[in-house]
Order: sequence, then C-alpha cells, then structure tokens
Amino acid sequence: MTVKQNVRTDLALEEKEKFDSDQVEVKGVVLEENYNEKTEIRITRVEIETEKGAKSMGKPVGTYLTLEAGNMPEPDEDYHREISKEIAKCIGELIDKIKAEEGKSEIAALIVGLGNRKVTPDALGPFVVDNLSVNRHIIKEYGKYAMNLSSANSLSALVPGVMGQTGMETLEIVRGVVEETHPDVVIAIDALAARNSRRLNRTVQITDTGISPGSGVGNHRNGLNIESLGVPVIAIGIPTVVDAVTIVNDTMENLVHALEGSKTLKSMGSILKSYTNTEKQELIRELIAPHLNGLFVTPKDIDETMKQVSYTLSESLNLLFANETRI
Amino acid sequence: MTVKQNVRTDLALEEKEKFDSDQVEVKGVVLEENYNEKTEIRITRVEIETEKGAKSMGKPVGTYLTLEAGNMPEPDEDYHREISKEIAKCIGELIDKIKAEEGKSEIAALIVGLGNRKVTPDALGPFVVDNLSVNRHIIKEYGKYAMNLSSANSLSALVPGVMGQTGMETLEIVRGVVEETHPDVVIAIDALAARNSRRLNRTVQITDTGISPGSGVGNHRNGLNIESLGVPVIAIGIPTVVDAVTIVNDTMENLVHALEGSKTLKSMGSILKSYTNTEKQELIRELIAPHLNGLFVTPKDIDETMKQVSYTLSESLNLLFANETRI
Amino acid sequence: MTVKQNVRTDLALEEKEKFDSDQVEVKGVVLEENYNEKTEIRITRVEIETEKGAKSMGKPVGTYLTLEAGNMPEPDEDYHREISKEIAKCIGELIDKIKAEEGKSEIAALIVGLGNRKVTPDALGPFVVDNLSVNRHIIKEYGKYAMNLSSANSLSALVPGVMGQTGMETLEIVRGVVEETHPDVVIAIDALAARNSRRLNRTVQITDTGISPGSGVGNHRNGLNIESLGVPVIAIGIPTVVDAVTIVNDTMENLVHALEGSKTLKSMGSILKSYTNTEKQELIRELIAPHLNGLFVTPKDIDETMKQVSYTLSESLNLLFANETRI
Amino acid sequence: MTVKQNVRTDLALEEKEKFDSDQVEVKGVVLEENYNEKTEIRITRVEIETEKGAKSMGKPVGTYLTLEAGNMPEPDEDYHREISKEIAKCIGELIDKIKAEEGKSEIAALIVGLGNRKVTPDALGPFVVDNLSVNRHIIKEYGKYAMNLSSANSLSALVPGVMGQTGMETLEIVRGVVEETHPDVVIAIDALAARNSRRLNRTVQITDTGISPGSGVGNHRNGLNIESLGVPVIAIGIPTVVDAVTIVNDTMENLVHALEGSKTLKSMGSILKSYTNTEKQELIRELIAPHLNGLFVTPKDIDETMKQVSYTLSESLNLLFANETRI
Repeated sequence: MTVKQNVRTDLALEEKEKFDSDQVEVKGVVLEENYNEKTEIRITRVEIETEKGAKSMGKPVGTYLTLEAGNMPEPDEDYHREISKEIAKCIGELIDKIKAEEGKSEIAALIVGLGNRKVTPDALGPFVVDNLSVNRHIIKEYGKYAMNLSSANSLSALVPGVMGQTGMETLEIVRGVVEETHPDVVIAIDALAARNSRRLNRTVQITDTGISPGSGVGNHRNGLNIESLGVPVIAIGIPTVVDAVTIVNDTMENLVHALEGSKTLKSMGSILKSYTNTEKQELIRELIAPHLNGLFVTPKDIDETMKQVSYTLSESLNLLFANETRI
Repeated sequence: MTVKQNVRTDLALEEKEKFDSDQVEVKGVVLEENYNEKTEIRITRVEIETEKGAKSMGKPVGTYLTLEAGNMPEPDEDYHREISKEIAKCIGELIDKIKAEEGKSEIAALIVGLGNRKVTPDALGPFVVDNLSVNRHIIKEYGKYAMNLSSANSLSALVPGVMGQTGMETLEIVRGVVEETHPDVVIAIDALAARNSRRLNRTVQITDTGISPGSGVGNHRNGLNIESLGVPVIAIGIPTVVDAVTIVNDTMENLVHALEGSKTLKSMGSILKSYTNTEKQELIRELIAPHLNGLFVTPKDIDETMKQVSYTLSESLNLLFANETRI
Repeated sequence: MTVKQNVRTDLALEEKEKFDSDQVEVKGVVLEENYNEKTEIRITRVEIETEKGAKSMGKPVGTYLTLEAGNMPEPDEDYHREISKEIAKCIGELIDKIKAEEGKSEIAALIVGLGNRKVTPDALGPFVVDNLSVNRHIIKEYGKYAMNLSSANSLSALVPGVMGQTGMETLEIVRGVVEETHPDVVIAIDALAARNSRRLNRTVQITDTGISPGSGVGNHRNGLNIESLGVPVIAIGIPTVVDAVTIVNDTMENLVHALEGSKTLKSMGSILKSYTNTEKQELIRELIAPHLNGLFVTPKDIDETMKQVSYTLSESLNLLFANETRI
Repeated sequence: MTVKQNVRTDLALEEKEKFDSDQVEVKGVVLEENYNEKTEIRITRVEIETEKGAKSMGKPVGTYLTLEAGNMPEPDEDYHREISKEIAKCIGELIDKIKAEEGKSEIAALIVGLGNRKVTPDALGPFVVDNLSVNRHIIKEYGKYAMNLSSANSLSALVPGVMGQTGMETLEIVRGVVEETHPDVVIAIDALAARNSRRLNRTVQITDTGISPGSGVGNHRNGLNIESLGVPVIAIGIPTVVDAVTIVNDTMENLVHALEGSKTLKSMGSILKSYTNTEKQELIRELIAPHLNGLFVTPKDIDETMKQVSYTLSESLNLLFANETRI
C-alpha cells in the first residue's frame, strides 16, 4: 500500500525502511548496519550515491549516519558519556573527510543551534549550544600555544532564533556570520520529526548534506548547505516529535496487517486489496481529522528528556573540538 | 460501536457526548447548553443527578460546567479578560451554593495547583498559582477593614507537587494544610486529558465534585473531595493533552463513517457492521501500537499556550477572591 | 573631592551630575530637563556637542535622552503603557532625525538584544527581543499592502549572545547580519550599570551614539556604532545593577558630607580636606575590599523586575515599528 | 568599635568572629576548627552550650557545623562530589544523634525547601528539592525489602513557597504536612545572608537548632524547630547574598584600619578613637544611604552558581537518604 509515502520523516534511515518494507531495491542507495552488543548502540550508514537515489529518497546525495541508543533519554549521572563518545566518532569521521579535502590538520567549526528555545521539542539546537565549551575567542586572543596545544580545533556557536522571532531567514543570519567569521565547517543542530515513535529521543542522525528545506520540527524554509553558505555543512538531528497525522497512517497500516493476518477479518482484507488507488486515497483523506494538523506526539517527560539528550550531544562536540569537558 | 467507551476523557461533557452519538438516553443525567453569540463562549451544564447516572458516566454525582471559548489559547493583551469574567461567574455559582449551605457571606478559599511544574502540559495548576493575588495573610494580619472592605473573601494557595517529587500523596499534603489553616472550600486546578483535540486549551471544566482518582494529566492516585478533605472541593480543569491512543480510536471511528458514507466502500462497511463484539475488540487491539503508551498529543506551541491560559484562569480567581487584579 | 570620577556609570546623566555636584561647568555639554507632573515622568536631555565635551564626559558626541519613571519596576496590568508611549516618543525623535538625514519615510530597524540570557541582570536585551512583534519577513513575503498599510516600518531582531557563549565578538555577529539584511538603523538594547541605586530599573537612556566599548553589565569589548557597523546605531539601556565598589565610594562621599555637616566631627572634616590628592587616593584604595570585584548590587526581586521592565520596553518598540501590539 | 554588631549574618561562625576580632571571650560558646589540606575543605564547629552563650550570640543553643570549600561555586563535572560527601558526613553526625536519642536504626526525613523559586538568590531550597531522589512513596508501597535493603532511610520533600505566594505562614504548611506524614526529622534548606562576601556560595552551615525567626534571604517570620513542629529540625543553609548595608559597615571598618595603619592619616585615626559611642553612631547612621535597603550584593553569575551549589547539596542528601544517586 502506498500510504507510507505520505508520511513525513526527517530520518534517511526511515525513508529507506519504507522501501525495505515494500521489498523494493533503491538504486544508488547503500545501507550498512553495525550493532555493538556491549554498548547496545546500533549505527546505520545510508549512502545516497547517485542523483537517482537522491530522487527516490527525497534527500540529497551524501552520507547519513544514524546512531540508535535505547537508553539515551533515561537519566544518567554523566549524561551517557559512552553515547557521547560514539556520536563524537561519527561526527569525527565526517570532519576528517573535510580536513582531507581541504588539506587542513585543524579546523574551525561554527555550531548553529537551530530551532525555537521557547518551544520545548524544537529547542534541541539552542539547548546544545548552551552547554558548549566555545574557544574561538580564546585561541584568537592568546593563540593555541597559550592553551598548551600544538594543534587546536576552534569552536564558535550561534543560536540564530526562528523567523517568527527574528523577522529574518535563518539562512540570512548564518550566512552573515559565516562571511564575517570564516569557519571551515558549519555544524547545524536541529530537532527532527520521526515517523516511528520508538525513535523519539533515542536516535541521532549525522549527515554531511546539511539542512534540507522543509525539514526539522520548525520546518526550515531554506536549506543550509555548501551551496547556500559556501562552506561544508554537517547536520546533526535528534527526532523529538512524531506528526500526529503519522499516527493515523500507522493505524491504517496496522489495519491492513490485521485484516490480512486475521482469519475472521480476511474477507475484508481482500476487499481492501481489490480497491483502486483512488479509492484508497479517498479512504485515507477521510480518516485524517483536520484538527490533527499542527499537533505533535511527544513523550510526557519531554522537558526533562530534552535537557538530557542535549547534554549528551553537547558533550560529543566538546570532546571533539574543545579538547576538554565541562558541565 | 463500542470503541468509544475505551477512550479516556476527563471531561464530563465528552463522556456525555459518547452516549449522544449512540443516541442513548442516560437516566439521571441532564444536559443544558448556552451559547453567547457576542462573546462566542458556549457554556454547557451537565448535572449528574443520581447514582445510576454517575455509574453510566463514570463520574460522581454533581454539577459540571464546561465553558468553551475558541480563542482562549490565542495571544491577547489582557489575557482574554472577557473569558476570565465568564469563568469567574461559573465558579461564583458553585461558591454561592457553598455559601448558602454553610450560611456564610464571606468565604476562605485554598487554591491547590495540582500537577508537575517541570512537565509543561501538566503545569497548569502551578502556573495558575504563580499569578494569584493571595490575601489570607494580609486579612489575618490587618483585618478586612484595613483593606477598606466590609466583607472580604480570603485567598490562600498551595503547589503540593507530584508524588515522584515529594514522596507523599498529594492528598496527604493538602489534608495536612487544610487541617492547619481551615479553609471553607478547596479549589483544585488541574490539567486534563481530553478526547477531542479540538478542545485542547479551549475548554474549562468547573465542577463541585472535586478531583477523581485517576484523572488529570498526572493521573492522581487519590481523590480530593469533601470525603477525603472534610471541606467542599471545587475542581477546575483545562484539557491540555489528548492521549495518543485516542487518535487511533478517532481514526477507527472515522473509518466506520467513511465506510458507511462512501458508495465505493459501502460493502466493506456492512461487513464491519456484521462483526461480533469479539471480532471488533480483536481489530482494535491490533490497531493500537504498543509504543503509543505514555505518548501525548499536544500543540507545538504548548509552552506559550500554557502561559496564556493559566493567566486567564488566575485572573478569574483574582476577580472572584482578591477584590483586585494584578499582573 | 575627586573620588566620584573613579565610579563607573553608563548613564550620561550621572556623568553630568558628577560635574554639577562640583559646580563645574562642562564646555560643549548642554543639559535640559523636563518633568511631566501628570505622568510623573522626568526626561533629561544631555547633548554632548563638541569633542572637548566628549572628552570631559568620557562619552561620544551625540544626544542622550534619559527618562526616569519611579514606578517602572512596579507590577502593572498593562506593563506601564504610559511609560512605553513616552519611551516610544524619545526613540521616535532619534528615528525621525535618521529618516530626515537619509530622506526616507519608512525605515527598516534591526533590534539587537545584547547581554546574557542566563544572567538575570544582564538579560534585558534578550528579554526585550522575546516580546517584539517582528514583521520584516511578513513585509518581505507579502508586501506592506497586504498588511493594509500604505507605509510600514520593518522590524527584525537578533539575540547575538555573549562572547563566552559564542566564541565570537558581538560586533562580528551583528556586522555579518547587518551586511546580509541591510537595515537602515540598528537599535541595540542593553542592561547598564548605574552609579545611584535609586535609578535601578527606573531609568531608560536612549542615545544616537551607539554602544561604547566597555559599557553594559556584560562589558562589551567593541563598540557598536555607525563606524563599526556602517549604519546609524541607537542604543537603549536600563540600569539594572550598581557595581559593589560604587557603594564604597558613596559611603566615602557621605562620610565627607557627614564630617562637614556635623558639629562634633567638624575637626576631622577639616583634616580630611587638608589632605593631598595622593593621601586621598591611598585612603580610597584601602577602603575598597578586593572581594567586592565582580559583585553587583541588585534589588532582591530582580527576576520579576527584569520581566516587567523588558515588557515596557518591548511595547515601546512594538508601538513604534510593528503598528500593532501583542503580548 | 561596635559597628560590627549592627551587621546581619545568618552564620554562627561569623557571629563568633565578631567577638574574636574584639578579642572578647564568649562564655558558653566553644569553637573548633578542622582543615583538610587534601580536599581544601575547612569545617568549623561552633557549640553554643548555655543560654548565656545563646544570648551573646543571638542564636539558640545547639551545634553549628560550617563547611567552607573555596571551589564550590565553580563549574565541575560531577558537581563537586567530594564536597557532597563531606556535607553528608556533617548532616550524618546530627542525624546519628537523633537516631540515638530516639533509639531508631532507620529514619524518615522530610526535606523542606524554603524560599522563593522565582527569586534566584532565595531559590536554594526549591532548587535542592528539585534534584532529590525521594523514596518514601516507594518504601510505603513496596516495602524496603523490594528495594533489596535490610534497612532504609525514607526521604520525602516539600516546597512550601513563601507567604506572599501562598497567603500562609511556612510554619502552618510544614506543620500540617508533618502532622499528616509523621517524619522523624525535618531538614530545612534555606538561602542565607552572610556578612562577608568571600563566603558567598562557598559555605554550608548545618545546625540542629532549626530555622530562627527573621533568618534567611526571605526573612522567615516564624521559626521551624522542635518546639513549633514537634520533631527535631536540622537546618542547612548556604549564604547567597550580603545585605548592601553590610558593605558600608565593611568600608567603615576598613577606614578605621586605614586610619590606624597609615602614617599620614594616623592623626585622624586618633581623633576617631577619641569619639564617644554616640558620636560614632551618628557617623554610621549618616553613612548608610536609605536607598540601600532591600538591595543585595550578589555575584554576577548567581543564576549559574545557584544551579551548581544546589546540585552539590542535593547530592549530599541523596547520598545519605536515597541509598542511590541520580542526576
């Protein structure tokens, strides 16, 4: 059934899963999965290699690393440092590629915390920036030798706000700051919408393709990428919401499975299957209550969870760039 | 179809609507509706008059006033004072009944702000208390004449917290404070779960039956009522969430309507109708994804909305008890 | 006595008062005072007209309007709209001068909320921006006619953060955004340090000279002005702290007055007067406890007060630019 | 000089120091100091043994343990667990005394977080409670054996709010809850006023005398102690402010020292010394600016510091009572 294609997800992994469940092979897209039994962390690599693959997936060509850690939203004394380290490795891989391409041994990164600080499930970016150990100003003032380092990455950070608060496109603000401060790479942090509620606050997507237009909880109007900013953009996202309409789609899918699997209901399943696409579309349209638009599904403890996962992510960036850790 | 009975709602109005849609008359329950075209505020009175009615409704005998104001969650310069006034009238009606019963011309009220300040959609109670103009301590110290009043209601307020934060039942805390400070009435404020997402943050339920066990976003374990506290308890609630499983139920109901209404799908509708209850239950069980438990549907701007509606409600109580207004 | 010169103030008015108390006339500086008995608002205009005046005052040539309203920090239902209107008039005067100079009938303003959101007495700028009705994006998308306006000022806003959070100079961020979005004027909002604790949260300084290096609660390293940004900069500040060392200076001044005024102590006063400047400096150095550095004097209710005064100031800007008001 | 006696401090240690600097011995008061060079933590024990000592000190008979740790307000990854452990030992000593007196091997403690959550330097108590691992409800529901413990202390917690928010005396609320839930001991947490700005956020006072009337940043009207509550009360306080008038006193004291120590000013010093007490009092009265009342001296980073020190203190209580730690 084609229902699934209508459902929004910002995760390349979930986009790929749609095809998998239909047992369709997607040309130009390679998937590789890696599960660490000790840390219970699963890392999935989706490589979109061709424009054809990009078109099928609705996402740009590039590398998408997805880290899944079931216990990430749970309280933990050191904010799951073991997860922070794995995230740092994934980001490090993409950073190393940029270093190699640009022939640099040290790199200046500008972290951009996207989203709205006042809307809890959209506040991931601002919260992550709140806990970074920026050091660009220190290196600029005293030099890296003053920090007893022979080589030092430099970290700066910006919370641009959202258009409804600033009257400006996020792209305008970030582009202005990039042109003024010349980072080697922009790392954009954003809260995402997932398709599967099981992924909420348990999944980190890291990609070298930047931020796509229309993505994120706050629906960015313009992309942030090497074309629009002039420097490579790594995007890091954590799904914090599921669109309420997604739940309706899930129910429909479950219905189809139920009808097919159940003895008593099988006759109805075969009727459903015999419907034309137009008939199916009609059915779905009627099922989606108009008042679900603008509604999100989140866990009840979203305030606490956002604090927890943003610390875990800040720590990854501090490990990678600040050569030290702080609270 | 009996699906609806499984869905949780804290609103007596929605409980009543379930029966209405099945065109079943509920003995011992009277409903009266009043729509003010000028203010666009609808007030519905549900009187549960008999124990039989209470059993059918799953709610105690008493008066349930429900005020619906479509624009309540929208930003407004004076936090919708026109709505505050209508809410104050509804509360005033129940207060006057208590005054008459107890033969008092002035009344000491203890407002109890239930819920968890750290969980935004559960924070209605604490937020309302934050904006109250309490005066019990002033009246106690200087007397009502010092305030140039010949008669003065007295207002005190408590945020007891939730059991996970306090290690105590809310009932234990409130009972202790009631026994120590002797209010004439307790007014408990709580965030509710609705059935219909259109009601979120647009509806205020005011009842003289107190807080029922298991109700509220935070699911109170014990009731707060005249039996447990020894003084009359008025409960005021605003629905701030819909349980995610409710959305699945809504989808099912819409499916039934769609099947019945659509020419092409009518045959399927008649099949569904021919199913036994057991067959239907099986279908529903399979449709509800297990991961929806603990998930809530809320509007994206819940942080801002909670601030807005809590001000509107505080203002009602200030109008009624504090004989003055403040910010 | 020259003690006073050592004391920091960001208010031109207080700088001028130092000279007044010594009955010294400052060449190139004109002061004009205006008290409205009805609103109880005092507006003082300090015009620094010459470079010589600028040097004496330690502040750049330009217009400094200071509005004093004793009840500004007090709770008020509409956040002192009467004060908002007066502030709007003062800002409007400086805006009109810029319009005249640039030959424009409508103006695009970028509000820059300086300071640290996480340090309450430094959070004025961010808090003001939180409550602005920005409209640049709406005008840009739909045009001013869509808003039923024949002429419309445009409002955008930025919270750049502080260097310790961003690793970037505020100037770098603002300059980048100005170059990208081309406002006609930048209006920088900042929390100030006053000399006199009576002025805390009761005074608004509005100047067309921009932000001076070293000013503000957060001590800006670089100035924000027409030279550094390429567009005129209006600075609006409210004093929210007094440096703790200022209190010591005040005590010394009071001591001198006490010694001079009191019969019993007069002999000591005359001794003090006979001291050389070196002797006086020595005395003062010893009086200032080293642990006072980094300490601020603020009212106890600073959290509530910051909320209150930031609303009053936001409202001025909304009145002037947004052609509408919101909460 | 008697200036010092006028200055407010909530620390018994500072009260004692006043006498020490005058080299006066206080009968009935014993002081014992202990400095750990490894942890750099100083613990001072002041025992007020007799009513005469209590009168001299202006504090009730009992044990006052003061822990000073210079780095407590500094950011730290595990919120200074080494300090938490030392604080836990001090509290444990007083708890053991209560256990011995009451012949109990396990104890039920009610933590009361005094102060105003909305006034940052007064929010110590509420912030500490926010991070406690309460367990009374778990032990009550499942028993200590379910927790795999043969003996378990029980922890509950309350944030009563302040009178201006509740309309009730803190004592009324706490007494009601104590009578309803029967703890063996109440532990009251409160922000204090210190005399010496060097002590701010670096000092923890732990006493078995409860909370005195008039103490704390919020100036409690009634005491919380065994007389008013019927159970022993341990009070834990951290100084977060210095009254602004204290700074004036310090300046005066420094002036006296300066006058005595300096060659050039010695003559003035001897004049001051020759003054009568009346003359001195007159001098001081004139030096204290009336607008300093209600003003506090705090460090600029008070918001961050309060978070830091409240975590350190929560952790002590979790170590002692919750038999586990959490974030």
